[in-house]
Amino acid sequence: MTMGDRFSGMDDIRAALADLPGPDAGAIADATARQAQLTKPAGSLGRLETLAIWYAGWRGDARPQVTRPQIAVFAANHGVAARSVSAYPAEVTVQMVANFQAGGAAINRLAETYGARIDVVALDLDRPTADFTESAAMTEAEFAAAMASGWAAVDPQAGLLVAGEMGIGNTTAAAAVAAGLFGGQAADWVGRGTGVAGPALAGKIATVEAGLARHRDALGDPLEVLRRLGGRELAAMAGAILAARHRRIPVLLDGFICTAAAAVLEAARPGALDHAEAGHLSAEGGHAALLERIGKTPLLSLGLRLGEGTGAVLALGVLQGAVACHSGMATFAEAGVSGA
Amino acid sequence: MTMGDRFSGMDDIRAALADLPGPDAGAIADATARQAQLTKPAGSLGRLETLAIWYAGWRGDARPQVTRPQIAVFAANHGVAARSVSAYPAEVTVQMVANFQAGGAAINRLAETYGARIDVVALDLDRPTADFTESAAMTEAEFAAAMASGWAAVDPQAGLLVAGEMGIGNTTAAAAVAAGLFGGQAADWVGRGTGVAGPALAGKIATVEAGLARHRDALGDPLEVLRRLGGRELAAMAGAILAARHRRIPVLLDGFICTAAAAVLEAARPGALDHAEAGHLSAEGGHAALLERIGKTPLLSLGLRLGEGTGAVLALGVLQGAVACHSGMATFAEAGVSGA
Repeated sequence: MTMGDRFSGMDDIRAALADLPGPDAGAIADATARQAQLTKPAGSLGRLETLAIWYAGWRGDARPQVTRPQIAVFAANHGVAARSVSAYPAEVTVQMVANFQAGGAAINRLAETYGARIDVVALDLDRPTADFTESAAMTEAEFAAAMASGWAAVDPQAGLLVAGEMGIGNTTAAAAVAAGLFGGQAADWVGRGTGVAGPALAGKIATVEAGLARHRDALGDPLEVLRRLGGRELAAMAGAILAARHRRIPVLLDGFICTAAAAVLEAARPGALDHAEAGHLSAEGGHAALLERIGKTPLLSLGLRLGEGTGAVLALGVLQGAVACHSGMATFAEAGVSGA
Repeated sequence: MTMGDRFSGMDDIRAALADLPGPDAGAIADATARQAQLTKPAGSLGRLETLAIWYAGWRGDARPQVTRPQIAVFAANHGVAARSVSAYPAEVTVQMVANFQAGGAAINRLAETYGARIDVVALDLDRPTADFTESAAMTEAEFAAAMASGWAAVDPQAGLLVAGEMGIGNTTAAAAVAAGLFGGQAADWVGRGTGVAGPALAGKIATVEAGLARHRDALGDPLEVLRRLGGRELAAMAGAILAARHRRIPVLLDGFICTAAAAVLEAARPGALDHAEAGHLSAEGGHAALLERIGKTPLLSLGLRLGEGTGAVLALGVLQGAVACHSGMATFAEAGVSGA
C-alpha cells in the first residue's frame, strides 16, 4: 500500500492505476436497506441519501461516521506564470503558503468550521516547472516525485480527503490539461482565473494553444498530458486522489484545477474516480464541461473560484450532515412512527 | 418588542407588519470594505461573500460570528388530512413530534451537526384546523394565537433563525396558500408531498381547487389567505419570521411550506423578507416558482423534500463557513501578500 511513496517513473504510476479496489458491496446493500427504514418519506433527503450510501460503501461500514477528514493543500510554481497569465505576481504562491501556515486563508477558516485537518505541502516553490510552450513542464522524474509527494501526503487513517491547491498560473495549466485530455479549443477551457480579462485573457488562451501545439503528439496519453502541461501541484493532487482510492478513502473534488488533475486518472482508467464526488461547481469557465466529461454532478454551486480546496470543504459540511442523518436517525420501528 | 406575544386579532398583526427595521448600513459598508481586503481574489468566494455581508448587516456587526442559531419546529394538524391528501395517516404528526423530542429525526441530527438549538412547538395537535374546502381553516382568534406562538418561540438572543414544520397534509395547505397569494392553477402549485401520485394526487389538486373556490373573495388579502387556507404551523412560521425581523435576527428559509408561510409576509409588505435568504430549493413541485415570486435564490439544491427545517439547517452549515471566512481571514496587509 505504500507503492506511491516510491514512484520512480511512469511505469510505477501506471501500475498503481492498474489494480484499483472497489467499494464494499455489503455495506452498500445494508446502508440502502437502512435508508428505507429511517423516519422520513422514502427519498425525501434527496442527494443526502445517495451521498451517505456512497460514503458507507467506500468506508466499508453501513453506519459510518465522518472521522478525521483531511485537507491536503499542494502549492507549486509554473513556468507559464512568466507569461502574465495571472492577475497576481508569482511570489504570491509562497506568500499564500505562509498564509496557510499562519492560519489566515479561507481554507483555514473553513477547515476549522468543519473540523478538518490541513496539511500544506509546498513543492519546490523556488523551482517553477518549465514553460510548457517550450518543453514538457516536468521531466519524468519530476513528475513521479510530485505524484509521490501527493501519495505520501494522504493520512492512511483519514476518513475523507480534500485535495486543494495554490499556484499562480495554475488555471492556465489546468485548462491546458483539460484541453489535452478532452480536445476542443483552448478558449473553451480557459477562464478568468484570479481575474484576468481583455488582452491578458487572450494571452492566456494563446499560451494554452501554444502548449497544445507543442505537445500535440503526446495528447493521447493522459499521464503524459499531465506531465507535459500540468504542474507539480496538479500531479500531487492526482497522486493523493490515487492514494485515497487504494486506501478506500472517499474524496470530495474541489474546483477546476483539482478536477483537471483528477480527470487525468479517470481518462487513464475509467472508474478511477468512483471514490470521488464533485464538491462544487466553480465559477471558473470550463469546470461544468470538465465535470460532465467525468460524469460527476456537483453538490454545491455557490459561485466560488478560489481553489485551495474551499468548495470541497464546504461540501464536507454537507457530507457530515448526510452521514449524521443516515447513521443517527431513528427507524420507523424504533420511533413508533406509522409508515406510508 | 413583545407585541407579537399578545396578538389578539388581525389588526395587531397588521401593525407588526407596518413598521419593520432595516439592516445596519454602516455594518454593510464596513463588511463590504473588509471583503475587498481579504487574502483572495475579489469575488472569488462568490455567494459566500454576499451572504456574509448580508449577515453582518442584520447583526449590526461588520465582523460577526454566527452565535446561538435556533431551529423552531412547529407542528400542527389539518382538517384536509381527512381527504387523503398525504401518503401518511394524520397520527404521524404527533408521532413525529415525539421523535423530535427524542432526538431521532433528521432535523435533530442536522441540528447537532451544525450546533443549533431546537425548540419543538406542538400547536393543538388534537384539534386540527377546519377543512378549508368547507370554511376558513382558522378563526381570527385561532390564527392570531398561532402567529403569537411563533413570535414567542423566537429566542431574542438567537443569531439566526430557521423555522421548520411537521404536519400531515401541510403541502396541501401550502399549495393553497401559494395559489391564493400568486394565482395560477392549483395544479401549478401542488406537488407530491410525502409521495402521493395518481388518483391521490388528483384528489389533492381537487382539494386545493375547492379551497380556492370557497375563499375566492378573500384572496386579495395575504393574511386572510394564510388564515383561511393555511394551518397553525404555517401561521406560527410567519409569526416567527416576523418576530425575527423585529429583532434583526437573520432567517434561512426552508422548503415549500416554510416559503409559502414567509411569502405571506412579503405579499402583505414587500421587503418584509429582506432579513431572509432561501436556504435551499426543494424537490417539491412549486418551490422554484415560489422562490421566484419572492425574489430569492436558493443557496442549496440537493433534492430534499422533507421539511422540518432540514434544508435550511444544511444552509446554516454554509453560512457558518461564509461568516468564518469573512470574519477570520487575514487581510493582504496582515499576511504580507501582494495584491493584484
